[in-house]
Amino acid sequence: MDDQDDRAVDSPEMRWDGWGDPDRATELPRAVRALLPVMLGRVHRPEPAPEIQRVAVDETRLTEADLTAFGAIVGESHASTDPQMRIRRAAGRSTPDLLRRRARHQRVPDAVVRPADHAEVCEVLQAAAARDIAVVPFGGGTSVVGGVDPDAGAHRAVIAMDLARLSGLVRLDAVSGEAVLLAGTRGPEAERLLAEHGFELGHYPQSFRYATIGGFAATRSSGQNSAGYGRFESMVTGIRVATPTGDLDLGRAPGSAAGPDLTRLLVGSEGVFGVITEVRVRVHSAPVERIVESWTFPDFETGATALREVVQREVGPTVIRLSDEAETGVSLAQIGKIGKVLAKGASAVTVFEGEDAEHRRERTAALITAAGGSSSGRTAAEDWARTRFDGPYLRDALLDAGVFCETLETATTWSNLHALRAAVNAALKDGFADAGAKSFIMCHVSHVYPTGASLYFTVLAGVKTDQLGVWGLVKHRVGDAIMAAGGTITHHHAIGRDHAPWLAEEIGETGIRILRAVKRELDPRGIMNPGVLLGDGSHDG
Amino acid sequence: MDDQDDRAVDSPEMRWDGWGDPDRATELPRAVRALLPVMLGRVHRPEPAPEIQRVAVDETRLTEADLTAFGAIVGESHASTDPQMRIRRAAGRSTPDLLRRRARHQRVPDAVVRPADHAEVCEVLQAAAARDIAVVPFGGGTSVVGGVDPDAGAHRAVIAMDLARLSGLVRLDAVSGEAVLLAGTRGPEAERLLAEHGFELGHYPQSFRYATIGGFAATRSSGQNSAGYGRFESMVTGIRVATPTGDLDLGRAPGSAAGPDLTRLLVGSEGVFGVITEVRVRVHSAPVERIVESWTFPDFETGATALREVVQREVGPTVIRLSDEAETGVSLAQIGKIGKVLAKGASAVTVFEGEDAEHRRERTAALITAAGGSSSGRTAAEDWARTRFDGPYLRDALLDAGVFCETLETATTWSNLHALRAAVNAALKDGFADAGAKSFIMCHVSHVYPTGASLYFTVLAGVKTDQLGVWGLVKHRVGDAIMAAGGTITHHHAIGRDHAPWLAEEIGETGIRILRAVKRELDPRGIMNPGVLLGDGSHDG
Repeated sequence: MDDQDDRAVDSPEMRWDGWGDPDRATELPRAVRALLPVMLGRVHRPEPAPEIQRVAVDETRLTEADLTAFGAIVGESHASTDPQMRIRRAAGRSTPDLLRRRARHQRVPDAVVRPADHAEVCEVLQAAAARDIAVVPFGGGTSVVGGVDPDAGAHRAVIAMDLARLSGLVRLDAVSGEAVLLAGTRGPEAERLLAEHGFELGHYPQSFRYATIGGFAATRSSGQNSAGYGRFESMVTGIRVATPTGDLDLGRAPGSAAGPDLTRLLVGSEGVFGVITEVRVRVHSAPVERIVESWTFPDFETGATALREVVQREVGPTVIRLSDEAETGVSLAQIGKIGKVLAKGASAVTVFEGEDAEHRRERTAALITAAGGSSSGRTAAEDWARTRFDGPYLRDALLDAGVFCETLETATTWSNLHALRAAVNAALKDGFADAGAKSFIMCHVSHVYPTGASLYFTVLAGVKTDQLGVWGLVKHRVGDAIMAAGGTITHHHAIGRDHAPWLAEEIGETGIRILRAVKRELDPRGIMNPGVLLGDGSHDG
Repeated sequence: MDDQDDRAVDSPEMRWDGWGDPDRATELPRAVRALLPVMLGRVHRPEPAPEIQRVAVDETRLTEADLTAFGAIVGESHASTDPQMRIRRAAGRSTPDLLRRRARHQRVPDAVVRPADHAEVCEVLQAAAARDIAVVPFGGGTSVVGGVDPDAGAHRAVIAMDLARLSGLVRLDAVSGEAVLLAGTRGPEAERLLAEHGFELGHYPQSFRYATIGGFAATRSSGQNSAGYGRFESMVTGIRVATPTGDLDLGRAPGSAAGPDLTRLLVGSEGVFGVITEVRVRVHSAPVERIVESWTFPDFETGATALREVVQREVGPTVIRLSDEAETGVSLAQIGKIGKVLAKGASAVTVFEGEDAEHRRERTAALITAAGGSSSGRTAAEDWARTRFDGPYLRDALLDAGVFCETLETATTWSNLHALRAAVNAALKDGFADAGAKSFIMCHVSHVYPTGASLYFTVLAGVKTDQLGVWGLVKHRVGDAIMAAGGTITHHHAIGRDHAPWLAEEIGETGIRILRAVKRELDPRGIMNPGVLLGDGSHDG
């Protein structure tokens, strides 16, 4: 299959002002261009981002001595103040990031430092701490929550620590099904290296083509095959971390009871305690069989009940996802056909890979049918599978056309799912309406657990002026609505800067005190990724 | 089935000087009594433990004011210095604990304080901190690693905080399959409460009849059905904890990415950060079907390969366990028949419960057969299932006969399993031999993971004098051997006092610094369970 092949293809350097491979940039289909003004009102095509060569950046605040020190550790050519290199490591890929990319002046890190291995990471951290320089670990640069912004916090400068040179498979234990991957290894490269030995990791978030193993761990990523292979954190069996004050090498054995599982304290730590340099992961035999199927339900609620049955009865789909009526209607799930109204009701996709796939499919089909769903063939599911990493290209096209487009996600228990969805829908709709903008909101469930599920929202809005300002207000309203309705502030995008205002409500003040205590212990000078997670940077993102 | 019924039966107060229900105390079968001198040499029947009424304890170090303060919080009758009550909450049930119980003087807590709810737990902790009194959380008292010893550390006194009054089901979300249980709820009571609603937790460690929900969480317990329902920590979806400086209420939603999963920092914290008062757990529909089966392999190695295939290919047994040749030979797995040599080779047990059980059994049978195993009917497996909580009764009988008997456990990757088993076997055998004692060592695998498995050792030894001293030397040697061979110091017994010397090697000095930093933040006066986990009590256990 096309997307199977994609898994092993390395991607070219990402567009600095948009998503992904510049050659894959897409135009909006004509039908969409016709439909959007009807749905959202007339919007204005904005100024495009400037050419990268014309972007202005501040002079580096690093001294010659700083650069010499970093160069002595990583090699002179890997401690760079080149403006383009710094611009490319200055932001993630949230919609606000992309809107800010349209400005002629960009805030950038004072240098990009690229260590080659764990020892160099340690040395760079120690040099940075001694020199009062903040460090932002940089993997794929795909954060959508401000996780890689070049924030110096209270320090005199900030470097982006690019982990691209820490790429590769350190070792594979084929008997135990465990692999150690370097943190800077990108998704496709990791899968290519494992496939050489007949294994697969099976972690396919939408950011897969660019995001890194270390980033997956640092942000508690969840991939599209999570129903089958689990969230990334459940794949992690060990982790190696360099902190400013010492190393961690955690995960001695499966099934240990030796005190709290500290691996799980570093997974999700978003670079504020140290830099993840290696991740040990559980891998499985690369599946040979693959069965995809589409389903239709009369409505989202009926579909959600079916998904709950499937996961609670452990039937074992590799992928199971359900679009609400709005998403089904515009068929955004099938990006190639946006605008073509294909179906009423709520559509779903299942994929079965690996052992006993046909049996698992049959049991799933029986549960879905009993719950009120019906098979709608393979085409829609195949379309989804083929284009499943392409959503961000469509967002670029929408933004270029002047349409605001962003996503956000949450999760809750099954019993609270519909109340949470209604609360988020209302907050989005009312928030944009109060700003005088029409909006169109779609939602899907793409990650299921025995006790609950994720909700992933895509919103398009006809915001005429100050898209950044309007979204800031709407996002705040939605965050408050999620917390009031009992959801988590993030299901798989992480906290970064954008969700930091809600972390205390999520984990409580005592939880915040725990994170700060660990931070003080490992990073007493506070150089690691200021502003992320704990929200103690120099600005609000 | 007999043991199914047992799940819902509450047990009477435990023997103070041995395991479990006094009425279930067992005699050694005659065949065993005949066999033991041959295997282990002649041993002497020791002095029995004194009657509890004749045990001497020190006067309480609490003042009248202390007792009045605690009584004002929990009610006068629930803050007690009664000697028998204190004796019963003075130790766990390791073999050293039981050997120490034979002395006429027992070290005991200065009082037993029994709060009724979370608020009272908080108040007791604050009063204790203000009065310089250490607090040992006490659940079922089944620790085998010194986890509930009355150690005052640097404080002027120590109380046992008995959580028995925090028992019950707080709420059940039947749609989401989640239940909130109070921490002091014992295993059978938890299952009885859930069964009323058609649900099961499915956590059956050997300590099940006495151990508590809070204890399971505090120690990262793993039960006999872990292949099907996971380790206890994987069942935990949320946790409520009272610390001396604030509350924690963690686990807002399934599948959150809101920073590190702090639930997992409290699970396994063994009472050194605070007191777990409620645990939210995933529950499943009570299974109706149950298929048990016994298997025989030519040797342990062949059996282990079969178990690995079964877990890595996700066939889904609820229970799968494999005894080595020694354990198979004396059939200790089938306690009712110890001494009766039933089988050569290595025997295994499988149990399938719940959905699609027959299909899962068929796939498992195919894999086991292909790997070189063969079915040996149901009798042995049914014996195991019926007597699976009874091992500790047999240990009491052995100790009463003068035979040293203890268990220990570790885990490692599949590729390292046999090397680790050989290293532990050698350390046990050589350790006892150097003390002039013959030993007999048995091993089984009872918990399997995709990447590895547990190893559980039972050792009998003909130690003539100073069993405590000899075991101290042997245990130390085995611990060192486990670490040198790449195992974890504990698979499901936790750290307590007994494994604290190895924790730094397990998680590294930086890991220890993290735990100490969290401890300082939550428990700045260090009143919580001194000596446990971090080994900073007033004595070595």
